[in-house]
Amino acid sequence: MFIIGEKINATRKSIDAALRSRDASYLQEVAKAQEEAGAHALDVNCGTFTAAEEPEVMKWLVETVQATTELPLCIDSPNPGALAAGLARHKGKPVINSISGESARYDNVLPLVKQYNAAVVALCNDDRGLPSTKEMALEVGDSLVSRLVKDSVPIDDIYLDPLVRTLATSPETVVDTLEVMRELSHCFPGLHFVSGLSNVSYGLPERRFLNRAFVVMSIAYGLDAVIVDPLDKQLVAMIYASEALLSKDRYCLEYIKAFHNGKLKD
Amino acid sequence: MFIIGEKINATRKSIDAALRSRDASYLQEVAKAQEEAGAHALDVNCGTFTAAEEPEVMKWLVETVQATTELPLCIDSPNPGALAAGLARHKGKPVINSISGESARYDNVLPLVKQYNAAVVALCNDDRGLPSTKEMALEVGDSLVSRLVKDSVPIDDIYLDPLVRTLATSPETVVDTLEVMRELSHCFPGLHFVSGLSNVSYGLPERRFLNRAFVVMSIAYGLDAVIVDPLDKQLVAMIYASEALLSKDRYCLEYIKAFHNGKLKD
Repeated sequence: MFIIGEKINATRKSIDAALRSRDASYLQEVAKAQEEAGAHALDVNCGTFTAAEEPEVMKWLVETVQATTELPLCIDSPNPGALAAGLARHKGKPVINSISGESARYDNVLPLVKQYNAAVVALCNDDRGLPSTKEMALEVGDSLVSRLVKDSVPIDDIYLDPLVRTLATSPETVVDTLEVMRELSHCFPGLHFVSGLSNVSYGLPERRFLNRAFVVMSIAYGLDAVIVDPLDKQLVAMIYASEALLSKDRYCLEYIKAFHNGKLKD
Repeated sequence: MFIIGEKINATRKSIDAALRSRDASYLQEVAKAQEEAGAHALDVNCGTFTAAEEPEVMKWLVETVQATTELPLCIDSPNPGALAAGLARHKGKPVINSISGESARYDNVLPLVKQYNAAVVALCNDDRGLPSTKEMALEVGDSLVSRLVKDSVPIDDIYLDPLVRTLATSPETVVDTLEVMRELSHCFPGLHFVSGLSNVSYGLPERRFLNRAFVVMSIAYGLDAVIVDPLDKQLVAMIYASEALLSKDRYCLEYIKAFHNGKLKD
């Protein structure tokens, strides 16, 4: 499982404040804490700034975070200028978050993916918006991945996000998302699947239980990357347990290691 | 989800002691506690007694438990004499735990299933022992369910237990079990699947995380009955969350009710 730490996101008040005051040490603390908790990459987002300010802030954010960690960053913006600014400063193999089937976004982001040999989060939507049915999601995902492959992006660099909707308003969304992952993983061996978790449980009580159960069943249907808070011990424990159960974790070695490192706690 | 409370089992020291001293009030407390926690049926097992003693004890146990609860019981013994004694005293529609593909067991238990219109847990093994591969498990499950149906047991009364093995020694067992449930649910619409949970995690640390993740992924592949401790709040919360996610719980009403009843707690 590829765990992308979600915490350095400007939609969080403390992060926005740290970005505005250029509080490097706070952001570096958040980065280190996620690394120590087991993150394999760190998402960096400064989307609360204007399109004009964002590239400068992203450039500073990438430099600031990579000054304290060797982890690759997941450069998170819909703004190609901000992506380009962050990528130009990034050390190692970056993840771009994100491309999609929307024409303008695809055309603007693809050159960056290729220029930086980046891995890329591919959102399963297009100019028609969010797929409203499983059939549409399959069609959009299929054509997006096919196009990326045709444009010479290695399948191993593609992380398709099936864009689970909100359970409270789309009761079929989880069943659809699981089926989409299973069917597309058969069509595209080696394709990765990534998801955020919190959207699914929006508007329901005790969301953490829904998020935990969603990650477990998603892993059982092919999810192999998540954008989560790696300090959520219960969630991380469920991820280790799921990988062990599905024998994606040979001899349960990672699970047992996590236990010895005190990561399997209620 | 059909939750069968597992706690009244003589392999537990306190239950064995209560059975030997005929401590009705303790056993009734354990029954009520499981009912209040949301169990839909209660397993009753007195397998630590000799084959000669067991029928008398089972008879007393069934009467004792049903004196305090309206819940149906899951009469749990490999001993047809004990099953018959318990069934003779049972009020309502019982569950027999269990029949299997083993010739002698099948021939001895089938008449009881029919005589009492019982629901029945059907263990996926036969005279050759436990299936060691997915293909064998599919063949054994298919022939066992086909035979029960041919013998006029309604499909809605059959709870197939795919008999997950121990992950530590059979790394493929969970993947195989999930596939077996998916394939047999397609072959036999209306067939139920039941599982105990703790076997899968035997020999590994912090087993509760593995058990929770296993129940979630099993529900996503068709499991609709479990034999568990209904007082395990975390486990029960994951079951409610899984059913809500898979829209087996319309409008998440059961999930929200569980929340209001204080059942969704860490």
